[in-house]
Amino acid sequence: MSTPYETGLDKNPANHQPLTPLTFLERAAKTFPDQVAIIHGSSRTNYAQFWQRALKLASALAKRGIGKGDTVSVMLSNTPPMLEAHFGVPMVKAVLHSLNTRLDAAVIAFQLDHADAKILIVDREFSGIVAAALELATVKPLVIDFDDPEYGADAPYPKGERIGDLDYEEFVATGDDDFAWSMPDDEWDAIALNYTSGTTGNPKGVVYHHRGAALMAYTNTIHAGMGRNPVYLWTLPMFHCNGWCFPWTLALTAGVHVCLRWVRPRAIYDALADHGVTHLCGAPIVMSALLNAPALEKREFLQTVTFNTAAAPPPESVLAGMADAGFKVTHLYGLTETYGPAVVNEWHDGWDDLDANARAAKKARQGVRYAALESLTVRDPETMEPTPADGTTIGEVMFRGNIVMKGYLNNKAATDEAFAGGWFHSGDLGVMHPDGYIQLKDRSKDIIISGGENISSIEVEDALYKHPAVVSCAVVARPDEKWGETPVAFVELRAGSTVTQEEIIDHCRSLLARFKCPRKIVFTEIPKTSTGKIQKFRLRDLAKEV
Amino acid sequence: MSTPYETGLDKNPANHQPLTPLTFLERAAKTFPDQVAIIHGSSRTNYAQFWQRALKLASALAKRGIGKGDTVSVMLSNTPPMLEAHFGVPMVKAVLHSLNTRLDAAVIAFQLDHADAKILIVDREFSGIVAAALELATVKPLVIDFDDPEYGADAPYPKGERIGDLDYEEFVATGDDDFAWSMPDDEWDAIALNYTSGTTGNPKGVVYHHRGAALMAYTNTIHAGMGRNPVYLWTLPMFHCNGWCFPWTLALTAGVHVCLRWVRPRAIYDALADHGVTHLCGAPIVMSALLNAPALEKREFLQTVTFNTAAAPPPESVLAGMADAGFKVTHLYGLTETYGPAVVNEWHDGWDDLDANARAAKKARQGVRYAALESLTVRDPETMEPTPADGTTIGEVMFRGNIVMKGYLNNKAATDEAFAGGWFHSGDLGVMHPDGYIQLKDRSKDIIISGGENISSIEVEDALYKHPAVVSCAVVARPDEKWGETPVAFVELRAGSTVTQEEIIDHCRSLLARFKCPRKIVFTEIPKTSTGKIQKFRLRDLAKEV
Repeated sequence: MSTPYETGLDKNPANHQPLTPLTFLERAAKTFPDQVAIIHGSSRTNYAQFWQRALKLASALAKRGIGKGDTVSVMLSNTPPMLEAHFGVPMVKAVLHSLNTRLDAAVIAFQLDHADAKILIVDREFSGIVAAALELATVKPLVIDFDDPEYGADAPYPKGERIGDLDYEEFVATGDDDFAWSMPDDEWDAIALNYTSGTTGNPKGVVYHHRGAALMAYTNTIHAGMGRNPVYLWTLPMFHCNGWCFPWTLALTAGVHVCLRWVRPRAIYDALADHGVTHLCGAPIVMSALLNAPALEKREFLQTVTFNTAAAPPPESVLAGMADAGFKVTHLYGLTETYGPAVVNEWHDGWDDLDANARAAKKARQGVRYAALESLTVRDPETMEPTPADGTTIGEVMFRGNIVMKGYLNNKAATDEAFAGGWFHSGDLGVMHPDGYIQLKDRSKDIIISGGENISSIEVEDALYKHPAVVSCAVVARPDEKWGETPVAFVELRAGSTVTQEEIIDHCRSLLARFKCPRKIVFTEIPKTSTGKIQKFRLRDLAKEV
Repeated sequence: MSTPYETGLDKNPANHQPLTPLTFLERAAKTFPDQVAIIHGSSRTNYAQFWQRALKLASALAKRGIGKGDTVSVMLSNTPPMLEAHFGVPMVKAVLHSLNTRLDAAVIAFQLDHADAKILIVDREFSGIVAAALELATVKPLVIDFDDPEYGADAPYPKGERIGDLDYEEFVATGDDDFAWSMPDDEWDAIALNYTSGTTGNPKGVVYHHRGAALMAYTNTIHAGMGRNPVYLWTLPMFHCNGWCFPWTLALTAGVHVCLRWVRPRAIYDALADHGVTHLCGAPIVMSALLNAPALEKREFLQTVTFNTAAAPPPESVLAGMADAGFKVTHLYGLTETYGPAVVNEWHDGWDDLDANARAAKKARQGVRYAALESLTVRDPETMEPTPADGTTIGEVMFRGNIVMKGYLNNKAATDEAFAGGWFHSGDLGVMHPDGYIQLKDRSKDIIISGGENISSIEVEDALYKHPAVVSCAVVARPDEKWGETPVAFVELRAGSTVTQEEIIDHCRSLLARFKCPRKIVFTEIPKTSTGKIQKFRLRDLAKEV
């Protein structure tokens, strides 16, 4: 039965438009045309120019026949063309596929084929590996070289050869200045494609839509505490969940993008001191790099800088060091499938007064949903019942809302599995605390089941990290005839340390139930993926052999 | 033709949820349960309690059979029940109809009948007029009295009689604590109904949807520069475009609502000083009241307070006074049909360095679209062609986007007319400046056409306001055999001034082309609507008689 509120009150172009971040850049360019949009080395691009460049890129793409649903792949650093692509590509209803610049040729080739790449824009830092990938790939995209004039005399890597059909500047120059760009037909239309790093099996192509990208811009602005005209430093790679959607977010408040090709402490301190950076994002390792930089590389800066970090919460000592150095650290959590961060450890003022242990316990939690995420829960994946909010019962972390992906490209089975029961299954295991904050305990596949008891590898790793000699560690399962599985620890020691396996195991026993303690300690360098994640599947293979 | 990005990537509950402000309050209550949500006199309500109250109100409504598409009317001041209604009513998919508390009985009766009110919640300040309205109305809603325990001993008006079937607290108490509230079925579903003040003809019922309310919360937060936990003072009536959607906006950042029944300078200064208010909204007259308050009513406060104002830009002297007093004034513009403000005078830092005249010229402009409004234009309503962006060619201001109403309730003709050609026609006349900022020149019906020339009544009023003796004025057309129409000015003089008609006309001639100058000056008090708008239709009647 239809009510009067549903009669004669339909959608029309005056009262309904697709949500998209494209209108945010258009607004910034019209309202603040002279405001600096992009700082890259010695170059400055204002908002009018940024818009014009994106428009010309879109026009150039259109002239090559690129349109709705076509994939434009890019292998780019945090440079202006990467920002231009975030707007220029969707302006012709095409989809931006950002390649992780640390991938090997086979994976690049797989992604190009799977995404059916029509265009490939490549920074010359990566020509070599991309040339090898193109040898392996079936698709034959139009290849465009980006030859960065700001590459820098102090570059740690030399530029590679030209491999493209034409140069990026030549390509953009083929576009028209007055191109008529397109709104998406529907806010549900795809805007970006990001492959999961895939610790096992083929990578899956995560599809984002315009609606989610626009909502991420709003919610990022709020959770990052971005006032008007923020200055954002690009330490986080833009190929990583579209830089957690910050290329689109900054357009909302006409912020300044400070590009950064290589994450080096001196360059970061220079940006903080010279450009008044207010916000940056990055893995905890960036914090350590900043704090441990030689005094000569450090610079004074006056502003408080918000540092958004994800993954494991940083140790208390690092957080204290960051506060002393002028940073406010915000702890986020999310996945490629949730457009990057979708959970934030909302800090209560009163928690600063807790003792160090209690404060660390609060810091260790991932937190609560972003405003633009409608629901966050911990459930038993079998029964789909919520676990008790007791801080101890482990279940799977699940998401529901408008900043969850459309699904996996050309992979209905994986999509259906991920969305089973009407929730996105993260594959992360965690607990719900009584106050509604979640805390991760493990990846589903990383849990160790020993004698029928679940052992959280994170819990064992936390214990290992409390040993002063341990700088990095990872705990995985080893098959065991008697127990099913037992935990094995891989440990990197601080330089000059001489600690034995027995001392480490004794240390663990002082903190953990005996069944949770590693049976074997392997002192070794720990293998990581291109995005810095520990490759537990490799460690599991190694564990079988020890 | 469907692309791979549209295949097997459909909406499901995991990746698509209706946009609604309800989830913002739920999040605030779960994340910051102990944070103060509402200050009203001596009472304090935290976010857990606010949520619980809204839930019980929703449950009580459901028990009375209220559900999808039903209208719940309220005649309430800026008090806690008004905030509760903004969430409790949509929690059962019903629609909140906020009555302007300054209306007369006939208009209230018209609205109750037109909206088919099922429930009517009435503050006892307004019992008398509502009782009279109910005599006139055909509908027989369940009437609920709100008897405010914080009414105040210094009340300028006495409380009226009980007229309801039961008391608000009794009614809420019938609700269940654990009521299962409803998300809207669709974000396009109605959330609120607000009647235009209707200077001619019957009021039109403007319907808002959940989508627009949620987007207003995001965009208000950004344009008002609301950081975390803002403190918002309710000087603007919540019956006015749902308080420009700030009841929903504050939920996004868990802000504090400071209620205010009567807008009196002493109470405002007390709130600023005692509660650390960071934001308030109001008409320019509130600024004058603050600045002109007796010294005894003023209080010191340390924070900078953002004052959002709409309608006519305040004079430069008022802005300077506000800056000295610790306020940052932001100038907004919008209509009931655009959820309140949808245009903001985005200020450029460099403009502070302009000379006084140039700065005043920038301040006088309404500005650019809100981020959540997709398009703002000035067009010839006949041809629908955009007017040149020359700052002088007058056209009609038109809006397009997600913060434009669904339409007018039960009024297809008016809805179709408002949305003709795919744009919302504001009825306001204005110009587009070369930098994309709009400036209002008049309401369509307020333009004066004299000897074939258009005269902007606003332009003439601006000239009148430059005379030191003029405190308020309005210019309307008077029919004229020779010229078609000529301008007549109605003027209120500063107390003690003795200025003649000739002096005022000479003053105008020193600033305006002769044909634009008023032929007649009427010194009188100027009639205003319940929302403080000048009633030009009355003045037009008076003008015929002078």
